[in-house]
Parts: sequence; structure tokens; C-alpha cells
Amino acid sequence: MTAAIRLHIVVPVTGMGVRDTAALEAALGPQVTVTCSRIDSGPASIESELDEAVAAPGTIAKVRAGAASGADAVVIDCLGDPGLEAAREVVTVPVLGSGQTSMHVAAMLGHRFSILTVLRRLIRVDEEKAPRYGLAGRLASVRSVDVPVLDLNHDRDQLVGSLAEEGLRAVSEDGAHVLVLGCTGMLGLAGAVAAALAARGVRDVPLVDPLPATLQVAAGLARAGLSHSRRSYPAPPVKDRPGYDTMLGAGPLRAGRGALAYRGR
Amino acid sequence: MTAAIRLHIVVPVTGMGVRDTAALEAALGPQVTVTCSRIDSGPASIESELDEAVAAPGTIAKVRAGAASGADAVVIDCLGDPGLEAAREVVTVPVLGSGQTSMHVAAMLGHRFSILTVLRRLIRVDEEKAPRYGLAGRLASVRSVDVPVLDLNHDRDQLVGSLAEEGLRAVSEDGAHVLVLGCTGMLGLAGAVAAALAARGVRDVPLVDPLPATLQVAAGLARAGLSHSRRSYPAPPVKDRPGYDTMLGAGPLRAGRGALAYRGR
Amino acid sequence: MTAAIRLHIVVPVTGMGVRDTAALEAALGPQVTVTCSRIDSGPASIESELDEAVAAPGTIAKVRAGAASGADAVVIDCLGDPGLEAAREVVTVPVLGSGQTSMHVAAMLGHRFSILTVLRRLIRVDEEKAPRYGLAGRLASVRSVDVPVLDLNHDRDQLVGSLAEEGLRAVSEDGAHVLVLGCTGMLGLAGAVAAALAARGVRDVPLVDPLPATLQVAAGLARAGLSHSRRSYPAPPVKDRPGYDTMLGAGPLRAGRGALAYRGR
Amino acid sequence: MTAAIRLHIVVPVTGMGVRDTAALEAALGPQVTVTCSRIDSGPASIESELDEAVAAPGTIAKVRAGAASGADAVVIDCLGDPGLEAAREVVTVPVLGSGQTSMHVAAMLGHRFSILTVLRRLIRVDEEKAPRYGLAGRLASVRSVDVPVLDLNHDRDQLVGSLAEEGLRAVSEDGAHVLVLGCTGMLGLAGAVAAALAARGVRDVPLVDPLPATLQVAAGLARAGLSHSRRSYPAPPVKDRPGYDTMLGAGPLRAGRGALAYRGR
Amino acid sequence: MTAAIRLHIVVPVTGMGVRDTAALEAALGPQVTVTCSRIDSGPASIESELDEAVAAPGTIAKVRAGAASGADAVVIDCLGDPGLEAAREVVTVPVLGSGQTSMHVAAMLGHRFSILTVLRRLIRVDEEKAPRYGLAGRLASVRSVDVPVLDLNHDRDQLVGSLAEEGLRAVSEDGAHVLVLGCTGMLGLAGAVAAALAARGVRDVPLVDPLPATLQVAAGLARAGLSHSRRSYPAPPVKDRPGYDTMLGAGPLRAGRGALAYRGR
Amino acid sequence: MTAAIRLHIVVPVTGMGVRDTAALEAALGPQVTVTCSRIDSGPASIESELDEAVAAPGTIAKVRAGAASGADAVVIDCLGDPGLEAAREVVTVPVLGSGQTSMHVAAMLGHRFSILTVLRRLIRVDEEKAPRYGLAGRLASVRSVDVPVLDLNHDRDQLVGSLAEEGLRAVSEDGAHVLVLGCTGMLGLAGAVAAALAARGVRDVPLVDPLPATLQVAAGLARAGLSHSRRSYPAPPVKDRPGYDTMLGAGPLRAGRGALAYRGR
Repeated sequence: MTAAIRLHIVVPVTGMGVRDTAALEAALGPQVTVTCSRIDSGPASIESELDEAVAAPGTIAKVRAGAASGADAVVIDCLGDPGLEAAREVVTVPVLGSGQTSMHVAAMLGHRFSILTVLRRLIRVDEEKAPRYGLAGRLASVRSVDVPVLDLNHDRDQLVGSLAEEGLRAVSEDGAHVLVLGCTGMLGLAGAVAAALAARGVRDVPLVDPLPATLQVAAGLARAGLSHSRRSYPAPPVKDRPGYDTMLGAGPLRAGRGALAYRGR
Repeated sequence: MTAAIRLHIVVPVTGMGVRDTAALEAALGPQVTVTCSRIDSGPASIESELDEAVAAPGTIAKVRAGAASGADAVVIDCLGDPGLEAAREVVTVPVLGSGQTSMHVAAMLGHRFSILTVLRRLIRVDEEKAPRYGLAGRLASVRSVDVPVLDLNHDRDQLVGSLAEEGLRAVSEDGAHVLVLGCTGMLGLAGAVAAALAARGVRDVPLVDPLPATLQVAAGLARAGLSHSRRSYPAPPVKDRPGYDTMLGAGPLRAGRGALAYRGR
Repeated sequence: MTAAIRLHIVVPVTGMGVRDTAALEAALGPQVTVTCSRIDSGPASIESELDEAVAAPGTIAKVRAGAASGADAVVIDCLGDPGLEAAREVVTVPVLGSGQTSMHVAAMLGHRFSILTVLRRLIRVDEEKAPRYGLAGRLASVRSVDVPVLDLNHDRDQLVGSLAEEGLRAVSEDGAHVLVLGCTGMLGLAGAVAAALAARGVRDVPLVDPLPATLQVAAGLARAGLSHSRRSYPAPPVKDRPGYDTMLGAGPLRAGRGALAYRGR
Repeated sequence: MTAAIRLHIVVPVTGMGVRDTAALEAALGPQVTVTCSRIDSGPASIESELDEAVAAPGTIAKVRAGAASGADAVVIDCLGDPGLEAAREVVTVPVLGSGQTSMHVAAMLGHRFSILTVLRRLIRVDEEKAPRYGLAGRLASVRSVDVPVLDLNHDRDQLVGSLAEEGLRAVSEDGAHVLVLGCTGMLGLAGAVAAALAARGVRDVPLVDPLPATLQVAAGLARAGLSHSRRSYPAPPVKDRPGYDTMLGAGPLRAGRGALAYRGR
Repeated sequence: MTAAIRLHIVVPVTGMGVRDTAALEAALGPQVTVTCSRIDSGPASIESELDEAVAAPGTIAKVRAGAASGADAVVIDCLGDPGLEAAREVVTVPVLGSGQTSMHVAAMLGHRFSILTVLRRLIRVDEEKAPRYGLAGRLASVRSVDVPVLDLNHDRDQLVGSLAEEGLRAVSEDGAHVLVLGCTGMLGLAGAVAAALAARGVRDVPLVDPLPATLQVAAGLARAGLSHSRRSYPAPPVKDRPGYDTMLGAGPLRAGRGALAYRGR
Repeated sequence: MTAAIRLHIVVPVTGMGVRDTAALEAALGPQVTVTCSRIDSGPASIESELDEAVAAPGTIAKVRAGAASGADAVVIDCLGDPGLEAAREVVTVPVLGSGQTSMHVAAMLGHRFSILTVLRRLIRVDEEKAPRYGLAGRLASVRSVDVPVLDLNHDRDQLVGSLAEEGLRAVSEDGAHVLVLGCTGMLGLAGAVAAALAARGVRDVPLVDPLPATLQVAAGLARAGLSHSRRSYPAPPVKDRPGYDTMLGAGPLRAGRGALAYRGR
């Protein structure tokens, strides 16, 4: 008999609310609960290197709090994976980024994948993520619909159409065999985009919706008792970090299940 | 409310029995059932390119039969992934290889991974699998314990010791941050190997047990409604394949859920 | 005084006849004889991963028989190289695949090469072969004429035109400096395709006809006394392989020159 | 007649003081002035992903302030290059990381380079930086002396000896032809380390001292009128970033020479 | 107080004069002097592998002479870097190629760079230089304006227009974020090309003028006391090289500062 | 009936004599004739970048002369392939380098190959050749016996022993599955080295003797009517090359079969 699994989502932006966890739970099967928190300080949305940088400290803090409150795995709710590697240092339960996980899922499903991102400026950023995750050879292209994150809901039909157009180009011009929605803010659009792709003749290409896919992998790792390598992500040394000590809750930690008891180097 | 998930395991060798599916089900949470079949013709075990080649046709046939009987996802129970790509052509439900999936899981967990295989001759074979799956840069090394597959159960303590010794070398000499058991015939040893690694001072390195890890990912993909790309793995053309037509059950297929209705090219 | 060289061609499909060996011998110089056999079971043609998988066992058997009958080198007559690595395990004389050999020849002749394949679905397959042979950086592109293998002879003029069109695109759009005919079923077309390319202004790009080029390299390796590495391709362990034992002729082998005396691991 | 060049150094840690700029100026030739600032909030030293993450926001702010006060180029004084890419988004003058610049300098000087870092845990971090900067093929190894940053001054002789020992191993075992001191906290040790290497027989390998080398390149780029690509690092969108707005000085910027006038996307 | 720096430029072609060193000095700041010499034998211009090959011996000789006359660093004035590696063997002061240095500068400034070369035939040559310098992953493309080197001055306006057109294509079609003028014979055009690019809407992409950029790096390396690795480029053995002994000035060398005293292997 | 094949060998050093062509012919089968010429000016042996540079012009001249005198293919008799790419520009018959060809042959025979070179200083040089030929992923290592080329004949037994020792290390420590003799000056030693390797337990690794292997491939290409790509290696422009015009025989060429009629660009 397996224990129930608790997943925690960290929303790394201040401009959106927390997730409707019930809808996400429904796709995960029985005995999986999902909680969600949002960072207190950081960017309204993530659309630049600056945004990723100022999203990271709050995200790390919320990952740590999520683990301390008993989560079996924590998921960062952004393709940019802000703070992912640092967050892995501060907890022992698995921390998954929606970007890294979606790219590996895509690589398992077919030959090469393309990412459909929001802004053109993120093309470079996503292109550099693929080699960082060891997947350079599997990335066909990154294409953008040129819509800011916080405008994603302004005209849903137009967005779906743009995603299908760029997806079609990724398939026919760049050789993509799998598509990844390039922003977790596109949650809920996968069905409509798949239909719009089918209307354009593209019926043979899976479409990865990053947050749901990442939650499935997170639940699986938690059930399998697997977490990230402490050799890759050892606990950080105890030291002063003025300006961040309160946010991170430093000092000898006495957190609950899954949180790391700092023992220095 | 999610539907129950049915996973099917194909054992691609004739020298071992089918799996104890109840034990595997227990780790997968409620509403997941696991079935298992074994190939009728093919090698007693897989330890050479020849073995992989003669394991493939039977494996493809059993994957197809598994999908036809209603499986939501099929897992090939061997690190060598015999017949994986061809099997994906003949069904529409996801087909996962224990090798490809474990390597991606390992790549998500840490910097570089090593595979602990059975025979020295498989080092090259596994080394060539990593670039094939797009993960060349994440493979630290392949090391072997030099025990034939069918002898894995002869001296369990010695095998555990050998795996821990090679794992230690992979970590200290090759820079591995994650370890993968290199044969699904090592199922059930992960706990003992982890303990033996800990006794040698290696406590910070996850150990991926391939079959359970692959089943978790298979359940997750099935729940997420994701399958391999039909653009990468389109249905094979209808044609004569003398010697294999009966085995594969060719002709216009009328199989159940998940099986492919051949429509030619 | 060098000994005469005997080359053996294995046709790995059931839908075509054996080769006109006299024509092939003529290009190889004196004292080279060519024999040819065809598999007894397997696909009518090779156009999918499934076809490659079911072509492999018969090909391995025929390679072994060819070596046992005294061949100095064996050539697999298909760009897909079905069973190549396994076949190398079962004989000591060199076994060459038309795909691997043509790609290395192309890489020696110029900067980057493109492959002109039959069906679009084989583009991915051929793209994955290049990194497998260590030549990822030399592949400019794979392009297809979208003609099934067994229809290659239906309209020869149209096929030549299509090959020249795709070759022109490979050169002008993809940067190819060398072209490889992507199917040994195109044997005999090289002259016409070169003329059609010249008519389109492409006169500075060599065109590799895979089977003749591979036979030349095979003769050279045989004369040089070189064969594949037994460390890469050691003899397979003696074991039961039900369903294939008769085909492969297993048991202690007493084959002639070049065939391997199985001694187990 | 060239204008005088003003370089600004940002110290991205709170546990060390600002640099002795006069000593650094002396090596840069006439008409180069160097100023230095230190972050107000952030880690005492940088020895983990967490440290890099919490160093970034303050570093970005100080880079911006440095540019606003008239610097012609800004240098981040840490091998880890915290905040480098985000900092490039917020100013138009060149921003150089000591890590990226030193690796390129090393790659220009010889075949492969090794980095001699402080703590073993940074080996992975530095190994991942090389491919990020496009230099994976030039990195021979990363080796550590296992001394925390803030202890670098405790026993200078022992540190020099350890650096020489690891440097010797990098040369003789890993094939390094160039060595890079792996922490700008080692400033001033290059001469002693070179002597200690010479005493161990290594006289033919350049030793790159990161901060001075980076300042030289920064002066050169400034004189050549070259800065980072605004296409790679466009100005970030105007938006709320609660918790960081004051630090970054957001709102329409009216900064001096080299600072970016935000115009949104 | 730093010593004055002496840079020496070697022009590796016989069809052009020496450089106006005063103009180049002006951009390098005080206390930098520039001298220049031209090879005595070799090609009128460098536009083929043959030209590079026959440019090399004379270039090596002039680099040696430049070092013997007291230069602190020597720069080869051609994107093709003829004789670069051999020249490094014969002197101890740093020898920089305009090609290698410009590519590293470009890689430091942005994501990917394109080279705008003279003749189409040099596209392959430049494409092969990038991996040689370890920068394969940073090269977006090489494009040509199809103008012979010695005709670069025939119609300056047309050349500037062609460079801007190809630069625009590199940016919009190939994903270039940085551009490199592909021939040092384009010296002096950077400002006009940047203006022409801006007129075409490309204002966010730096343009690297190879010779001035390389001189800046050369001055920086000389000031930092850095030179190429003698382990990568050891002094050549003493031996007869009939036809070149006089040109190279072989025999035990007693040259001035920076020249190598041959001591054999 | 195939025409007889004429191969021409160019010895690119002045310190050795021409080859015993009869012995080489014997291994090539009937109707193949081999001629040989030696450069008039250039290094006594090739052991440095300087040697390669000054070997190139004479080699190009002799390749051209060889083609002009009717050779069907020309082979450069040195692992360093001096002048290879330039030589291909000046003739239309295939020009093969012993280095490039041997590496491709080795890559066809097994997983990874090692090169056994003469001097330690050539390790870097050979390591850089592999990526240049697109074979970086196939090179296991380069090892040296530390014997100058012209001393190779001083103590043959010791040389054979050293080659076997380094070969053993390449196999057991570096993972080599194929070995390449790293200097054509080792011609004739392959049998003795293979025996010495067998005496050390290495019986499963092919040993490539570069010159004979390259001649076999050259004969095969010539028979197949294949030559290098004129798109990769177009004829050089007509221009003055003072100091080399006589050597190269420039001006409108009226050479025989296989020599290029210069028509400028």
C-alpha cells in the first residue's frame, strides 16, 4: 500500500494568483494532493534574465517552506525554472522545474522538439536552456508568438491561432516532431491548440503542456523514492546572507519532513 | 475523476519468467494495474547485439498484443530497449524502454550519471545508447560487474558488493552524481546496493532502479494523455514480411483500444 | 602476389532479387569475385523501423553463411544497415554496411554531405544514423523524393528528376558539398542523376552510389587484412535463442574461413 | 587621441571589502581609472547555487549604478559571474564576468584549460559554465583545493602549494595546457603559484589570474567601442518587481552615460 | 607604472601595403606603439587554401622577426590566421590571429555570431575555423558578399550595402546576435556598415572589426603578462628545412626580447 | 573491364627517401601501379606545426605534378596531412591524406580509436585533427612513444615494445577498440606490433597501418570514379604568388589527365 503523495507548486511571479489545485489533482489519480504558494517578492511575470534573477530568491524560500510543510515533491511553475538549482540545495525532496522536465519528456516522445514561447526575446534564453539540460541535440527550434505573459488571456482565440501557426512552422520548417508549450501561463490551452494544429493538418505531433506533465513526473519520482543528487546539489554552507536571511529562514533549520537540517559544508 | 491506468510489461527474453506484477503495482498507487507477457521466441537473455536483434521481433509482437488487449502504456523490460522504435510504430499508446527512460530520469536528477551493467561487452553498447537518446553529455561512464544476466541470482551478496564497488568507482573516478542499475534483472537489489554504497561512504548519489522508475513515468504519461510522436514513429507500410506476418498479426488490424489501425503509408 | 578477393553481398529484403554480380565485379578490378544471397524471411522492402527489425535476423544468418562459404568481406545491401552490428559479432571477416561506409566516404570527400532518401519517414531514421556513426557534424541534411522502395523503377525519369531537384536543394539550401544516394535500390542511377544535376548547374558535387562505393572499401579492407574490432563486436555467448537457432545455425560452429568458432564468452 | 577609460568593478559578496583599485589601475596603462563597489545585500561569499542566486539582484543593481555613474565597462568580480546576463539587460556599456572572460582568454592561449576552484562542490558548477559559454570542448577539467573562500587567506603558503599540486595534476593527468585560478579571491597569488608550479617542473603553462585578465579585456572592448549584443540582452520590460524596485531603481530611468533609458518592450 | 607596449602587425599578403599604424595606435591609448611588416613571398591575397598555405612560411618568418625586434605581441592581419600555430612555436611573446581573436570576442558579446566573408568559397573555410577554435556552437553562419579581396576598394558603397544586406540576413534568417567583418581588408568600413544596418532596422547587433579588436586584446594580454601555452606550442626541433632555412633565420637563435632561443626538443 | 589504376605517393619530408613502391603495389592487387615523389624543399621530418607549414608548399607542388603525370589518385605520406586541403584545390583527381583516411577507416572498424604518435608534442596536433575531420566523438586518445621521426629506425625492437605498451594503455585505460600507427615512418612495423600486443593479451583490436590502408581507399575511390568535392575545394584564383610561382608551376596550366586547367574564379 503506497502512502498518499503531496505535491507543492511554487508560482514564481507576483502578477498571477495561485493555481486551481483541484483541477490539477484530478489528473493525477487518487491519493495525490496538490498545494500551491506564490512568491511574496519578485517580478510580476518572467520575461527577461532580470525577471529570472529577481524571481529566484523568493522561489527558493517558497520551495523550502513547501518542503517544510510536508510536500513530497515541489514543482516550479515556470518554463524558465528560476532558482531551480539553488532550491535543490536547500531541500531533500525532489524539486522539478517545468522547463527541464518538459524538455526531457519531449525528448522521450520523439526525435526533436520545438518550444513555443511568449516573447521573441526568450528564444535565446530557451535555446541556452537545452544544452544546460544536456539536450542540445534534441531541440529543433524555439519560436515565439510575441505576446507578453500577462496578456496571454487577452485574446484567447488569437493566441491559440498563433500557437498553432508557429507550431506548424516548427514542424514543417524546423523538423519538430514534438511541441512544448513555452509558458505555464498557457495552462488549459493544449486541447484548443491541438485542435488548431489538426485543422492545419498536423495530427502526428504530441503537444506537451508543461505544468501537468511536470506534476506527473513529480508524483512518479516521489512514489519511486527518487530525489535529485545531493552530490550535484549539496546543502549550502551556513553563512550570513544579509537581506535574504529572513526570507530564507536561515539559522539551524528545524523544518519538518523533507526540509534540510543545515550542517554546514 | 481519472480513469484507471493499465500498464503492460513485455519481458523480451525467453530465459526468465514474467514479473510479479502485484509487487510492482503496489508502488504505483491506486487504480493502476500491471500486466506482463513474455516473448515466445528470442534469446534466453540479452547480452550482445545478436541477442538484441533476435529479441526485437517478438518484443514488437508482444507490445502490439499488449496494446490490443487494452493497455494504456507498454514498458519493455530490458535496459537495451530491444525493438523500442519499431514497437512505437505499431501502436498508438506510449511505449517506453527501461533504458531510455532511466537515462532521462537520471539526467533530471543530477549532473552526470553512470550505468552499472552486467558484462564488459555491454559497455560499448550502453555508451552508444546515450548519444542515441540525445544524452551523450550526461553520461559519466558505463562500468560492469562482469556477471552474465542469468547468473545474477547465483550469489546475491557478491553481486551487491560488486555493484557497490563499481558504483563507488563511478562516483570517485568518473564523476558520476547519479547511478543507474544497468539491467532490469537487478530488480529488487536497489535497497541493498544503496546500503552497500552508504557503507562505502557514498550517501549523496541517487540510484535509479530502471523498471520501477520506467513504470512511474509510463503511468504519468498515460495519465497526461501523452504518447510518442507519430511523426517520429509513423505506422509502417502494409507489405509482406514473410516469416513474421503471423507473429506480428499483420493484415488490416481490428485491435482494441490503443492498437493501430493500419492504413498503409 | 595478392590472393584473389571474394566479396559477398547480402540483400536484406525479400521483395527484390539478387544482384547482377558480374556488373559489380567489373568495377572492382581483376581477381575480385562477388557473390550475392538474399534473406529468406523478412520484409519485402525496408521503409520503417519495423522493417529494419524483421530484416535483421535473416541478414545476420546470411552474413554468417556468406563468411562460412569463404567470403573475405560481406556487404549489407541497404542504407539502413540492418543487423550490421550483430552480424559483426558472428563472423571475423569484415562486415560493411552500405550506410555507414557511404557516409564515411562522403565525409572524406568534402565538407558536409546530404542523403537523398526514398520516403519522408526515413529522414529521421537517417538523421539518427549519422551521430551513431560519429558523423553528426558532417551531415548537412536528409531529403526525400517520397517514392516507396518497390516503386523506384516505375518511372525512372521522374525519379532521376526528383533526385536532382532534392540534390539541388540540398546543395543550395542546406550547404551540402557531397550527395549520397539514399537507397541501394537506386543502383545504376548515379550517372543519370549526375547529368540531371549538371543540367541544373550543379557540377562540383560528388555523388556517392552506396553499393559500388561500399564494395570498393570492402575489397580494400580485405586486401589490407583489416576487419572490425572484436573488442567492439565480440562473439555472442552460447545460449538458447528459440525461434532463431535453426536460422542462425547455432551450436559449435565448424564453418570455413572467416566464420567464427563460438567459444562462448 | 583616445578618451580616458573608466572601469567599474562590482564585488558580488558582502564578506569582503572593495578592491585596492590603485594596484589594479597600475597594470592597465595610462588613462584608465578603476572604481569599485560592493553589494549591500547578498552572501558573505559565493560557494553554492544559493549564494549565486542571492548575489544576483544586488550585483545587477550595482552594475546599473556603476554604469549610471559613468563607467565605460563593468566587471563582476567573481568566477561564478552572478547576475551577468541580467546585468547586461539593464545597461548598454559592456558587462564582463570574470568567469566567462577568463575562460575565453584561456581558450585563446592554448589547447585545453583547467580551472582550480575553491570547494569540491563548485566543480559541477564550473563544469556547467563551460558549455554555457560555448567552450565545452576546451575545458580539460575543474579541480579544487577544498578551501572555503573566506579561509583563502588563512594559510597562504599552504594554499599556494595546494594550487600548484592540483595544477600539476591538471597538466599531467587531465591534459591541461592552460590554468585558470578559479576564484577572484585568489588575486595576488598568481606569481607564487607560477613559481610553485615551476618548482614542480611545470614551466610551459600560462596561469590566468581572472580579475586582472578580465579588466584588460574590458578596457580593450571599451576602447574598441564594443558592447554586448542588445539582441541577446534586450532591455527588460517595465513592470512591477515588488521587493526589488527600490534596489534596482526602477521606473523610467534617467541615468547618465551608459545607463539604459527604459522604453519597455 | 606599466611599461610601454609594442605591438607588431604582420600583413600576410604581397598584394597590399603595410598598415597606417598611427591610425591604429590612436585607438589603443597612450604608451602603445604599433609597427607593421609585410611578407616578402606569398600570395597577393588570401582567398583559398592554397593562398593560406603559401602565406604561412613568410608569415612565420615575419612574426619571428617582429618578436626579435622587440614586439610585446604580434598580430596576424588576416581572418584566415595563416601560420598562426606555427608562428606561436617560434616566439615566446603572444601571437594573435585576427580570426581566432575576433571569434572569441564575438562569443563574449552575445549568443551566436555570423561572419561576413569576401568570397563564397571561403564559407567552408571559415565554418571549419569555428570548431577548430572550440566555438562551433557559437557560429550562426558564414555569409559572403562575393567580392575578391583585391576588389574590396573598387566600389565602397556597393560593398557596404552588400555587407549590410548579408548582415541583415544573418540576423533575421540565421539567428546571429553579433556580426564579424570577415576580412581585415574591410578595415575602416565598420562605421558605414553599422549605419547601413541601422538603416535596415538592425540596431541591436554589435559589429566586430577584426584587426582593431585583435589589437586591443593583444595589448591587454601583453600588459597582463600572458602568452600562449608553450605546452600547446613548444619550440620546434632543430633540423634542416631546405628552402626555408634562410627565410626563417634558423640555426641557434640569438634574437632579442621575446624571440625564442632554440634548444631543440 | 576496368582500366589500370595509377596511384602516386608524395613524401612530404626531405629527410627520407622515396618508397619501395613494388612492395606497396603487391598488396593492391593486379593492375595497380604506384609511383612516388619527394618534396624538394621543406622539413627533414614533420614534428611540429612549423614543419607542417613548410612542408605544405612543396607537397602541393608534387601533388600537382603527380596528377599532371597521369595519376588517378594521390596520397600524402604523413599522418599530419600537410597541404591536403590546398592540394585538393589544384587537382581534380582524389587526394588522400594518410591521417584523415586512417581515422575514417578506424572509425568504420570499431567504437573508438587511439593514435600512437611519435612525440608527445604531437598529441595536441593529432587531437585537433579528429574534430577537423568530423570524428571527435570517435577518438579515444592520442599516446606517444616519445621517439623523433628520424630515430624510428634506431632501435626497432624497443620501438615495437613502446608501441605495444602504449597500445595496451590505450586499450585498457582509454577505452580504445582500434589502434592507428601514428606515423607513416612506422611502415612495416604493424605485424611486429600486433604480435607484441598479442603477447600482452590484446588480440581483439585491429591495428591500422596508415599508408597501406590509405592506398587501398585511394584505389577504391579511383575505381569508383569518386573524387573530392570541387564545391569544398574549388580551383584557386589566378593571381601572383611571388616565391611560389615557379614551384607551383602557375600560369594557365596545360597539364595532363587529372590536372586542373585554371580558369580563375
